[in-house]
Amino acid sequence: METPRLVTSESGLPRIIILGAGFGGLFAAQELGKLNAQVIVIDRQNYHLFQPLLYQVAGAALSPSDVAWPIRSLLKRQKNTHVVMAEVQDIRRDQNIVVTDHGEFEYDYLVVATGAQTSYFGHHEWARYSSGLKNLSDATAIRERVLIAMERAELSQSESERRRLLTFIIIGGGPTGVEMAGIIAELGKSAASSDFRRISANEFRVLLIEGGDRLLRTFPVKLNSYASKALQELGVEVVTGAMVEEIDADGVLLAGGCRESGTVMWCAGVEPSSAARWLDVATKPDGRIAVTADLRLKAQTEVFVIGDLAWCPDKKGKPLPGVAPVAKQQGRFVARCLKNELSGRATPGKFRYRDFGMLATIGRGRAVADFGRISTKGWLTWWFWGLCHIYFLIGRQSRLLVALKWLFEYLTFQRSSRLIVK
Amino acid sequence: METPRLVTSESGLPRIIILGAGFGGLFAAQELGKLNAQVIVIDRQNYHLFQPLLYQVAGAALSPSDVAWPIRSLLKRQKNTHVVMAEVQDIRRDQNIVVTDHGEFEYDYLVVATGAQTSYFGHHEWARYSSGLKNLSDATAIRERVLIAMERAELSQSESERRRLLTFIIIGGGPTGVEMAGIIAELGKSAASSDFRRISANEFRVLLIEGGDRLLRTFPVKLNSYASKALQELGVEVVTGAMVEEIDADGVLLAGGCRESGTVMWCAGVEPSSAARWLDVATKPDGRIAVTADLRLKAQTEVFVIGDLAWCPDKKGKPLPGVAPVAKQQGRFVARCLKNELSGRATPGKFRYRDFGMLATIGRGRAVADFGRISTKGWLTWWFWGLCHIYFLIGRQSRLLVALKWLFEYLTFQRSSRLIVK
Repeated sequence: METPRLVTSESGLPRIIILGAGFGGLFAAQELGKLNAQVIVIDRQNYHLFQPLLYQVAGAALSPSDVAWPIRSLLKRQKNTHVVMAEVQDIRRDQNIVVTDHGEFEYDYLVVATGAQTSYFGHHEWARYSSGLKNLSDATAIRERVLIAMERAELSQSESERRRLLTFIIIGGGPTGVEMAGIIAELGKSAASSDFRRISANEFRVLLIEGGDRLLRTFPVKLNSYASKALQELGVEVVTGAMVEEIDADGVLLAGGCRESGTVMWCAGVEPSSAARWLDVATKPDGRIAVTADLRLKAQTEVFVIGDLAWCPDKKGKPLPGVAPVAKQQGRFVARCLKNELSGRATPGKFRYRDFGMLATIGRGRAVADFGRISTKGWLTWWFWGLCHIYFLIGRQSRLLVALKWLFEYLTFQRSSRLIVK
Repeated sequence: METPRLVTSESGLPRIIILGAGFGGLFAAQELGKLNAQVIVIDRQNYHLFQPLLYQVAGAALSPSDVAWPIRSLLKRQKNTHVVMAEVQDIRRDQNIVVTDHGEFEYDYLVVATGAQTSYFGHHEWARYSSGLKNLSDATAIRERVLIAMERAELSQSESERRRLLTFIIIGGGPTGVEMAGIIAELGKSAASSDFRRISANEFRVLLIEGGDRLLRTFPVKLNSYASKALQELGVEVVTGAMVEEIDADGVLLAGGCRESGTVMWCAGVEPSSAARWLDVATKPDGRIAVTADLRLKAQTEVFVIGDLAWCPDKKGKPLPGVAPVAKQQGRFVARCLKNELSGRATPGKFRYRDFGMLATIGRGRAVADFGRISTKGWLTWWFWGLCHIYFLIGRQSRLLVALKWLFEYLTFQRSSRLIVK
């Protein structure tokens, strides 16, 4: 193996490069910590993000440091692991080289786990007028837009301007959209009733716009209607069967001509990152990369593709969803493949996803869960949701602090994270 | 009283406007919470900042939400108090009007508490190449510059570039500079030894540059030399008697021709904010506004000036320093004056500062304190410093969380706040 241009390699050791430190990449890296190989994790951010709680940062209930941890800290005990903060620009498959904006890196094995990004379904111009929710800057941008709109409404004398400033439009009725609508409605309620003097709770409007005929369509039907009802009780106006025609500086235009003015948040879709272009491979219609039963590129078996990027069928032949548990399990599986391969043992066979169910929360106190045979909803489910999420938080310190913060907030309804940091 | 253009006034009530929600403005506002008057607090930020711990955000030891709280939350129980997020542009003293970028506000009484800002002693161009430390954006900017420099050094193959990237130059040997040097040195040590693979602790250089002949010149001499020694034990190179000639993209040039390349942080000076210009009053040579014994403008007794802005002599005729305890006590004093005046009682007379001493910390485990007759240093002083700062933190939630975070960090040396959020 040649020495790459930037990172000095321990002589003779095979090198595994992992692109992306989301759930897939991080869990693969952690599993490889004791392997007699050099592991390099490349990410354009310096942090791993606990994506399932990112909407809480957008809703000013948690702080960035509660849901994100420096990748270096998470992997500091693995002496065989290097972390590189750089942006991937290309992959030269024929030369086994990853090209980044901070140099080129040679690999023996490559794990591509760069995940998904916000998709506007071809309308890139909509990104100017609405915020997606994929990284910390997205979340703090939403937080600041919402808080500033309220500040401006508090001072405004114009009825129509106040109405626009106090309208928040969330597009997409999947789990992210539902969670976002819940937290923004609660932020508005608590802010209007205690922090502001001239905004009343009933002036605060949250619209949840869904193109399909029901919310949370991956959940069982009875949970869909429960979610709608729970959101409506929080004051959210749920609009289903409404397609977005246009997003501009003022708000959204819906098919049929209805126009809503306000702050727009986009939770309607994601698309795979640019990995297929770097790898120069064909994709499935949804942009994901088809992989073998053990998560490799068919044409190049030293390249693994996992997480939101991978088109990987379940038992019934339907592709697995782009969710954290799939990515985690795939990361661990790939690490086992590599460990076996490097020690000359047989590969662990096919990847099989163990589905533990799905959870989504609606405001403070309600949640829905689908465990396949059983589905549940309500107050107890919310506590279960809270415990699960605290349990899965990556850093030990964060678990303790988030638990205390939530408890404190639950008791006092105080929101210390409502900071506007320009 | 006429109705101002933006905020509806409760009819007939006198209106007190407080400019700035730092220690002076906030403590004045809190003291006025039950007064039969309308109180308006105007600040360009939406948060009150616990300035004494801001360097810990810059050093990635605490998060922004640990040291800042939304002003609205802090004052939410005071139904007579409005909070306005706006930037002051002018004060029309003859009309009793404050002009902001979001409208004009009439007042009966005005408390000007807009504090101080970073001063480059006339070299405004130095702001491009160095960071001051006055608000949250300053602190997160320093944190990101330091963390990114380390990321780049980890990948760099050039000796001279690595040296530049791993050199951190702090200008100013007052308490802020000393605390900053200590925390940056410790951040470097812990990051080099655990997080990074190719940076060694002895490559990491922290320079503390002071123009005078000793550090912490407002403290007793024996504490000055203790601070120097303690910093040197942390690996900080203390350079006294060194004047800065130039700051540019590469680093600093010192008088005498010595050049140091690296990331520059400016802790050398502050100057009063633009209040004297708005008020159109003359200032003392240091830019502060001379006030009467009860902290009013001589020419206009309904205008109070407090905190870092006010030139207010102590018993010996020397001006009081621009520190938090002075601002707090002045804020409370002014509130008492207003309460007495509005209820027809005699004014509380002259403002008298009660000096409880000064504290500064050097890294984790050492501090100096000067209580006038007694001065103390070392490990126990550091614990005293920690308890004091936790006690004085404004939000109850923050006190608990910061205490836990510090305890956790003290035991494990983990730094969860090392996030680069672009």
